[in-house]
Amino acid sequence: MKELVFVGLGLEDENGISIQGLKEVKSAENVFIELYTNLMPNFSLNNFKIISGKQPYILLRHELEEENGKIILNAAEKGKTVFLVPGDPLIATTHITLRLEAKKRKIQTRIIHGTSIISAIMGLSGLHNYKFGKTVTIPFPYNFSETPYKVIIQNKKFGLHTLCLLDINKKKEQFLSINDALKLLLNIEQKRKQKIVTTKTIVVGLARVGSSSQILKAGRIKQLLDFNFGGPPQSLIFPGKLHFMEAEALVAFAGAPREIKE
Amino acid sequence: MKELVFVGLGLEDENGISIQGLKEVKSAENVFIELYTNLMPNFSLNNFKIISGKQPYILLRHELEEENGKIILNAAEKGKTVFLVPGDPLIATTHITLRLEAKKRKIQTRIIHGTSIISAIMGLSGLHNYKFGKTVTIPFPYNFSETPYKVIIQNKKFGLHTLCLLDINKKKEQFLSINDALKLLLNIEQKRKQKIVTTKTIVVGLARVGSSSQILKAGRIKQLLDFNFGGPPQSLIFPGKLHFMEAEALVAFAGAPREIKE
Repeated sequence: MKELVFVGLGLEDENGISIQGLKEVKSAENVFIELYTNLMPNFSLNNFKIISGKQPYILLRHELEEENGKIILNAAEKGKTVFLVPGDPLIATTHITLRLEAKKRKIQTRIIHGTSIISAIMGLSGLHNYKFGKTVTIPFPYNFSETPYKVIIQNKKFGLHTLCLLDINKKKEQFLSINDALKLLLNIEQKRKQKIVTTKTIVVGLARVGSSSQILKAGRIKQLLDFNFGGPPQSLIFPGKLHFMEAEALVAFAGAPREIKE
Repeated sequence: MKELVFVGLGLEDENGISIQGLKEVKSAENVFIELYTNLMPNFSLNNFKIISGKQPYILLRHELEEENGKIILNAAEKGKTVFLVPGDPLIATTHITLRLEAKKRKIQTRIIHGTSIISAIMGLSGLHNYKFGKTVTIPFPYNFSETPYKVIIQNKKFGLHTLCLLDINKKKEQFLSINDALKLLLNIEQKRKQKIVTTKTIVVGLARVGSSSQILKAGRIKQLLDFNFGGPPQSLIFPGKLHFMEAEALVAFAGAPREIKE
């Protein structure tokens, strides 16, 4: 049967896959995996082999992006093929492209969802998910852009929170840290002077969400500038107008200063 | 050990839980479940018992909301307690409240994430997740509000998509359908005349996302007004400015008219 099943792996390790996802892997003829659109710090391919009985083929970025995932689609034309993806599938646009290519080749697709980094961050922060505005990625300094700053302003105007994902470059083993992202934004503030990102602004820093070593720390930017969040992935939230319950959650679970409740 | 572990069940049935989540259930002394903050059309408590070896206590809304989850917290003070939750935990504010209460009683909490309806909807639609603005819930006519209409306008102004969750009342077995939600919005349009929600507006209707009977249908409102989406849960997306890849995905996977690509 011509079939391609996208299966989400969640955020932490080989135990983040759902029972349904594991069933799909066990019954697949071909299993592929990519590990570059999201970081899964504790994922072990060896342990995955033990629980699933399958040895997934590790896709390289160019096989997915330059060659349009030809290698997966060729396999899916011959028999049931599972494509394992960090987080929740179809959040990365490259997976949507692959699904479109599959459709053109008349290969049926199905999605077995997994934990999404975006939903996990929102839930863990204690901030209400319906109060998040547009999400933005803060790029490395060599891809400098003022867009994140503008998005934060736009969201704040409506009282909304801004989730900032921080860029990663898996190939170069680089990731943008919370500390560096804050410095970048403070530099833009110095030019734009909208008083949106000052050393007194309350922000929430999150590292390795969904893993056992996750860190959640809220405070004024000056308190977070030198705080050591450890390894990637890291992200940032600029809260909008806080409901008292949201402020309480930030104090209780993220060590925010008590005065934010006032 | 005083511990409360929130475990997400995902969207469809008893196989949506992650392997890690199932491990937590198996090693718990007490297991609770609530099934009212989200609908899981195919979840079987009996099958869950078979795979986990545990019989969860089904929490009623008033036990969680009026009594602040006292029954769970009392159990967690005596031994490891798992609280099973549809979707991804902590998306419903009532779970955040419970986590705060646990903290006050010095009970440690951990989160084992699950598939979130919000992330699943975004991924499935093929629309880029970073282009979604604020999410809004459309209430039943007896709780009439113009807020959803205003949120759609606000998001569109910035080219952003709006995800509209449709109200459910589990107790009364009521749910707002896509058809009725569209009628409500057309009525507001008649008064406000902003030309945001007309019979020609392109929308995306989604039903039972994450389940094997899911439906995804994009089209002009006049085409969706009488379309039968079947049972709940249902939701709607008002797309903002479409990237050509997003338009292509809507045509390929949601049967949108080809002219939206132009």
